[in-house]
Amino acid sequence: MPDHVYKIIEIVGTSDVNVHEAVRNAIHRASKTVHNLQWFEVEDIRGSIHNGEPHFQVAVRIGFRLDE
Amino acid sequence: MPDHVYKIIEIVGTSDVNVHEAVRNAIHRASKTVHNLQWFEVEDIRGSIHNGEPHFQVAVRIGFRLDE
Amino acid sequence: MPDHVYKIIEIVGTSDVNVHEAVRNAIHRASKTVHNLQWFEVEDIRGSIHNGEPHFQVAVRIGFRLDE
Amino acid sequence: MPDHVYKIIEIVGTSDVNVHEAVRNAIHRASKTVHNLQWFEVEDIRGSIHNGEPHFQVAVRIGFRLDE
Amino acid sequence: MPDHVYKIIEIVGTSDVNVHEAVRNAIHRASKTVHNLQWFEVEDIRGSIHNGEPHFQVAVRIGFRLDE
Amino acid sequence: MPDHVYKIIEIVGTSDVNVHEAVRNAIHRASKTVHNLQWFEVEDIRGSIHNGEPHFQVAVRIGFRLDE
Amino acid sequence: MPDHVYKIIEIVGTSDVNVHEAVRNAIHRASKTVHNLQWFEVEDIRGSIHNGEPHFQVAVRIGFRLDE
Amino acid sequence: MPDHVYKIIEIVGTSDVNVHEAVRNAIHRASKTVHNLQWFEVEDIRGSIHNGEPHFQVAVRIGFRLDE
Amino acid sequence: MPDHVYKIIEIVGTSDVNVHEAVRNAIHRASKTVHNLQWFEVEDIRGSIHNGEPHFQVAVRIGFRLDE
Amino acid sequence: MPDHVYKIIEIVGTSDVNVHEAVRNAIHRASKTVHNLQWFEVEDIRGSIHNGEPHFQVAVRIGFRLDE
Amino acid sequence: MPDHVYKIIEIVGTSDVNVHEAVRNAIHRASKTVHNLQWFEVEDIRGSIHNGEPHFQVAVRIGFRLDE
Amino acid sequence: MPDHVYKIIEIVGTSDVNVHEAVRNAIHRASKTVHNLQWFEVEDIRGSIHNGEPHFQVAVRIGFRLDE
Repeated sequence: MPDHVYKIIEIVGTSDVNVHEAVRNAIHRASKTVHNLQWFEVEDIRGSIHNGEPHFQVAVRIGFRLDE
Repeated sequence: MPDHVYKIIEIVGTSDVNVHEAVRNAIHRASKTVHNLQWFEVEDIRGSIHNGEPHFQVAVRIGFRLDE
Repeated sequence: MPDHVYKIIEIVGTSDVNVHEAVRNAIHRASKTVHNLQWFEVEDIRGSIHNGEPHFQVAVRIGFRLDE
Repeated sequence: MPDHVYKIIEIVGTSDVNVHEAVRNAIHRASKTVHNLQWFEVEDIRGSIHNGEPHFQVAVRIGFRLDE
Repeated sequence: MPDHVYKIIEIVGTSDVNVHEAVRNAIHRASKTVHNLQWFEVEDIRGSIHNGEPHFQVAVRIGFRLDE
Repeated sequence: MPDHVYKIIEIVGTSDVNVHEAVRNAIHRASKTVHNLQWFEVEDIRGSIHNGEPHFQVAVRIGFRLDE
Repeated sequence: MPDHVYKIIEIVGTSDVNVHEAVRNAIHRASKTVHNLQWFEVEDIRGSIHNGEPHFQVAVRIGFRLDE
Repeated sequence: MPDHVYKIIEIVGTSDVNVHEAVRNAIHRASKTVHNLQWFEVEDIRGSIHNGEPHFQVAVRIGFRLDE
Repeated sequence: MPDHVYKIIEIVGTSDVNVHEAVRNAIHRASKTVHNLQWFEVEDIRGSIHNGEPHFQVAVRIGFRLDE
Repeated sequence: MPDHVYKIIEIVGTSDVNVHEAVRNAIHRASKTVHNLQWFEVEDIRGSIHNGEPHFQVAVRIGFRLDE
Repeated sequence: MPDHVYKIIEIVGTSDVNVHEAVRNAIHRASKTVHNLQWFEVEDIRGSIHNGEPHFQVAVRIGFRLDE
Repeated sequence: MPDHVYKIIEIVGTSDVNVHEAVRNAIHRASKTVHNLQWFEVEDIRGSIHNGEPHFQVAVRIGFRLDE
């Protein structure tokens, strides 16, 4: 196989609704500035609390392929 | 900034439906007995299985500000 | 109490939709081959990215009771 | 299933004899002040040494069901 | 040395008495279905509480040699 | 030795100045409500940033002896 | 994407020579009994010492796709 | 709340004096190239030793808000 | 000593051959875009499996000195 | 308080019987060569299996006070 | 480069004042008995509490070069 | 079985070539001063970078049997 090289960046997506919406927000934002997104890893699920409701902050490691 | 002090308690919320519902249940219950809830951290996602369906048990660390 | 013995297997469920759907898929598949499923633990939440959308891969440890 | 909510407290039981005696001491003491104890998790096994003999200090996380 | 290959399985032994009894129960049960057991690693010590007494559940990783 | 039992609570002390000031703030606040403080463990050092300066938030586990 | 389900098994490969040879031995042995191997993760690198030379024992988690 | 998205970068600040000076150096340097710094997390405290004195190297994760 | 500041980036190098070749590929690729590379840390060794052979993917944290 | 300095060594005690016997064996052996033993921490519980019975190997970190 | 070999020892320095003083005490004491100290890593920050004030105990791993 | 007692020391071997060479260097150096080496565990793989090439530094825990 070709010896591709990848970079991992860490993005924190947020959402008032749930974890997967926060993950999606992180990936969508990352795709605005880097290309060839390949995989993600949820690293941390936390958040702030406002009026007794959670605001999810999900730290996501995102891997993308670097150009040769 | 004022040197606030916070306490962290650990609450396990449960839900037949999903993870974020369990988190909400944990926070709602905590807000019945303590005030000034500020943040939460999901520590552990597990659960029991009944008739082949998951019953989510999500351990949540919840931080709240202590009175001076 | 009787000294039951359990085995833990690791199954990765996947879903385009969210984390709890992936957990359900893992448990449903496990219940096709083993019986007496008792509990699960989410070990790792990651996934691949296709067209800017996450495909969740959730590693789940599943415990079931062994026959005497 | 009903969406019960649980709280986890951390108690350190001690014993000159062994680990499980220290666990028992932690649970017995906890049951004096809280009810509906459900499960425990051994988090840390350490201790002091006196005259070349161990005095076990076992940190135990104890979960109990909160009233609705 | 010959390049043996081993498999690791995870078994949870239980005991009302203590940790090492739970470990023994896990190993004895494993030896009913697999052979050439070589080593074990205690991964997690937890349990349920009944009438204020612990019921130990000890997760044990057990390694055994695979046939060539 | 007598089989003392201890409880661990988690307090987050804060300080604009440094880590040990935050630890002291956590311990001083804890000593207002519980007695027989025995030891502490720094669990996490983080903080917010205001005008380019750190505001330290140090999570401290504090152990104290329970009355018999 | 189709919601495939995967199983993870843990195999320890060994080698007198180096780490990657031990990984290969683990994967080759696994491929004798299961199909559709997809990925691996090195979990632990250890070994025994004989006559001052290392005999590598590399624990590898191996994921394979389950049939529908 | 608005669903802000954040990026985390890792900076190692150094100091001959102490840990918090190293943290400050990391944050000050980061603020030269990125804006909207929000929080930091100390990840690792290590250093080199010269003439019997420590030169602190503190790895700090720094989070900042991305523009929409 | 001068209080240098460093940045850490995470690069995944790959290789069909072995772990150190993947590490080299990661470092070589990083040196195309950043200067003053100082150290690396292997964070994770995993990979895909093709025709029963491993394709190593090694995540490497790489530290480089920032200009003043 | 005087600023005592301590050293930590790692000793693996073994026992056919149970965990605390292995801990005692580790501490007794350490006390033959170093003095002022102060505390211990159980780091790892594993062992070999012979004829279906566990031989416990418990890694213990032992701290002792250094002379001024 | 020459293939130097290093040894790591673990020393606990203490201080009533702060973390970096405890680190210095550990390094100073180590330099009395071993030479060629090269680096250190803070492993654990804890301590005892006396009259409501912390007495820091900082476990430091210290690396030094072995003679050929 | 006889209740042997073992000690673990930590040695960092280095190599310009690869990981297993660094492990060998660590073990060979250890065998000059202690006897009855039994096992090793790779704890950390890192290194310095010179002219764009890695110089591996592999921390290895080495266990050896203590005399009775």
